[in-house]
Amino acid sequence: MNLRIPGPIPVPDEILETMCRQVINHRGPEFKELLYRITDRLKQVFETSGDVIILTASGTGAMEAALVNTLSPGDRVLCASAGAFGDRFGQIARAFGADVVDVCFEAGAAIDPDAVRGALAKDPEITTVLVTHNETSTGVTSDLESISTVVKGEFDKLLLVDGISSVCSLPLPTDAWRCDVVASASQKGWMVPPGLAFISFSQRAWDAHSKATMPRFYFDVSTSMRYFETGQPPWTPALPVMFALDLALDAIIEEGLEAIFARHRKIAGMMREGVKRLGLSLLPEDRVASDSMTAVRVPAGVDGVRLVAEMRKKHGVVTAGGQQALRGKIIRIGHMGQTTAADIQSVIDALEEVLPRLGFATGAAAAHRA
Amino acid sequence: MNLRIPGPIPVPDEILETMCRQVINHRGPEFKELLYRITDRLKQVFETSGDVIILTASGTGAMEAALVNTLSPGDRVLCASAGAFGDRFGQIARAFGADVVDVCFEAGAAIDPDAVRGALAKDPEITTVLVTHNETSTGVTSDLESISTVVKGEFDKLLLVDGISSVCSLPLPTDAWRCDVVASASQKGWMVPPGLAFISFSQRAWDAHSKATMPRFYFDVSTSMRYFETGQPPWTPALPVMFALDLALDAIIEEGLEAIFARHRKIAGMMREGVKRLGLSLLPEDRVASDSMTAVRVPAGVDGVRLVAEMRKKHGVVTAGGQQALRGKIIRIGHMGQTTAADIQSVIDALEEVLPRLGFATGAAAAHRA
Repeated sequence: MNLRIPGPIPVPDEILETMCRQVINHRGPEFKELLYRITDRLKQVFETSGDVIILTASGTGAMEAALVNTLSPGDRVLCASAGAFGDRFGQIARAFGADVVDVCFEAGAAIDPDAVRGALAKDPEITTVLVTHNETSTGVTSDLESISTVVKGEFDKLLLVDGISSVCSLPLPTDAWRCDVVASASQKGWMVPPGLAFISFSQRAWDAHSKATMPRFYFDVSTSMRYFETGQPPWTPALPVMFALDLALDAIIEEGLEAIFARHRKIAGMMREGVKRLGLSLLPEDRVASDSMTAVRVPAGVDGVRLVAEMRKKHGVVTAGGQQALRGKIIRIGHMGQTTAADIQSVIDALEEVLPRLGFATGAAAAHRA
Repeated sequence: MNLRIPGPIPVPDEILETMCRQVINHRGPEFKELLYRITDRLKQVFETSGDVIILTASGTGAMEAALVNTLSPGDRVLCASAGAFGDRFGQIARAFGADVVDVCFEAGAAIDPDAVRGALAKDPEITTVLVTHNETSTGVTSDLESISTVVKGEFDKLLLVDGISSVCSLPLPTDAWRCDVVASASQKGWMVPPGLAFISFSQRAWDAHSKATMPRFYFDVSTSMRYFETGQPPWTPALPVMFALDLALDAIIEEGLEAIFARHRKIAGMMREGVKRLGLSLLPEDRVASDSMTAVRVPAGVDGVRLVAEMRKKHGVVTAGGQQALRGKIIRIGHMGQTTAADIQSVIDALEEVLPRLGFATGAAAAHRA
């Protein structure tokens, strides 16, 4: 199978193989070295001199951790959402008692920094802004740098970022962009299986933490840091994924972030060109289209659910459909990690074979028509 | 290394190897089969016709899930604690706003059903009882069946059980003993690496859930069940550990629970006999000593921290020391999973070589003296 969903992403063989290693004592000296070695390099990838905390959880767990460690019930929070994952960030905040103000953008649009400015100017009681950097439900990357200029530079609010599908794939310099908490998860650009999630924590986030009263235990970062001092995790972590991450970070640091970002831009460009040549269009405008995954509109008259199923069955190309209101209307193609030109071509080839059978004539004619 | 801590436990090679498998789409048909196949067999091992929910978390995460899904802030809860993990159950409940009444037992003692009866009789406002079945910090297994007779039979309270280090190692028939929620974790008797945790959920637990207002999102079992209907996880799970669990469950079901429990009893008996022959004594009385791990008193005058370190360095035998007030005073030896007589003997041999160097003469003389 050519796994082309926006995570989990295919894991290189040598990284998979390292998970065969026997488990170790998570409170012993070997683990201590592993924890410190991984954490040092996570900080390099997050581009932060702050803390990075490892959680055994999914990205959603990391989003919850970002919120419950910095907020109190009743806190007014601005949730800037460009899709399902942005909405989720707000839902978690609400579940824990935050007073959430939503600023929503239509499917395919990015978060507009001016709209964020307007919302903050109108409501001075907002203390915190939630932003999804790369919205996987719509294939959109928002301009986090400009959003941060508003949130931090103009209004000096706490900035919590869902960087789950961007860190390690797209530029997200945590400190330079003054992000207080950035969440990510192992099954995205990190090239390892799911099981771990990460959150960065700035000094401002720690200040907020000292006053934050949302209930927390498993995700309490104070506990994590207290154990970290002794080289231990607070609770037993997903060791095989840590072994995998240890090796993946070698490859990431060796290649270098700039090279990784450039490679993602190039592969994403090939993906976008390829689908356009078939006569398809993207859900987002090109200038906000994500370089870590691509959301393509299903042409009118084509059954989008069947398109995904046929690509899988006939071609072994596993893509994701749209969620909620976008179900059947888009397909989402992941290209994080070590995606090759051949991987991209196999997706294009599958689309080219399946679409005509479902009633859409691909190619120059279609492109002309579009 | 001979990993002899009370979890993570050594994972058989063929189970480690299955984690090399490439990751899959967690929202695709392959995952659906995996999820249903695993869940069916988890229910067999939990001996329940209720639900069992899989979480990507440690055992502590499962304890949190048990609490936040069934309780509301202000609920009066009895925490029957025989050690550090019992205390933790109460701490989590407190962190989420429960009104916790503690009934604590001294290190090495089991939870006394009569004391639970007394506490419940004295305070009718208690709605829920928290019980640790196997207390890993002291090597004690409490008589959960008798406790349940009091909690359920006499008082009809909600019964939440930490079965983390007992399910799949010691008898814990969830339905027969009327446990409403039982928590366990993958790195214990299940013979797989850490990364997953499980909670069973009775009808009474679902009734409690429908009224429970503790905040939750990542651990919300309603969300898990809604996704389960479609064969999906709510959030991206620790796939490699699921692959491992799928294979481990084959072995567990094939061997059969009674045979597994008998094997654990036999191995635990060898462990206890062995340490006694060295002149050592157990922390708990024999009749409550756990069959999944053993807590041995460090003899007076011996540096317990050094004992653990020397066994590791000189013999490759990795044991755990005591926690908190028991630091340096006990060593804890795990024997969950496929522990062999040779594994036990290597622990005894290591103790026999190291103890005299640390000032304790082992053997018949010591046994006589003890």
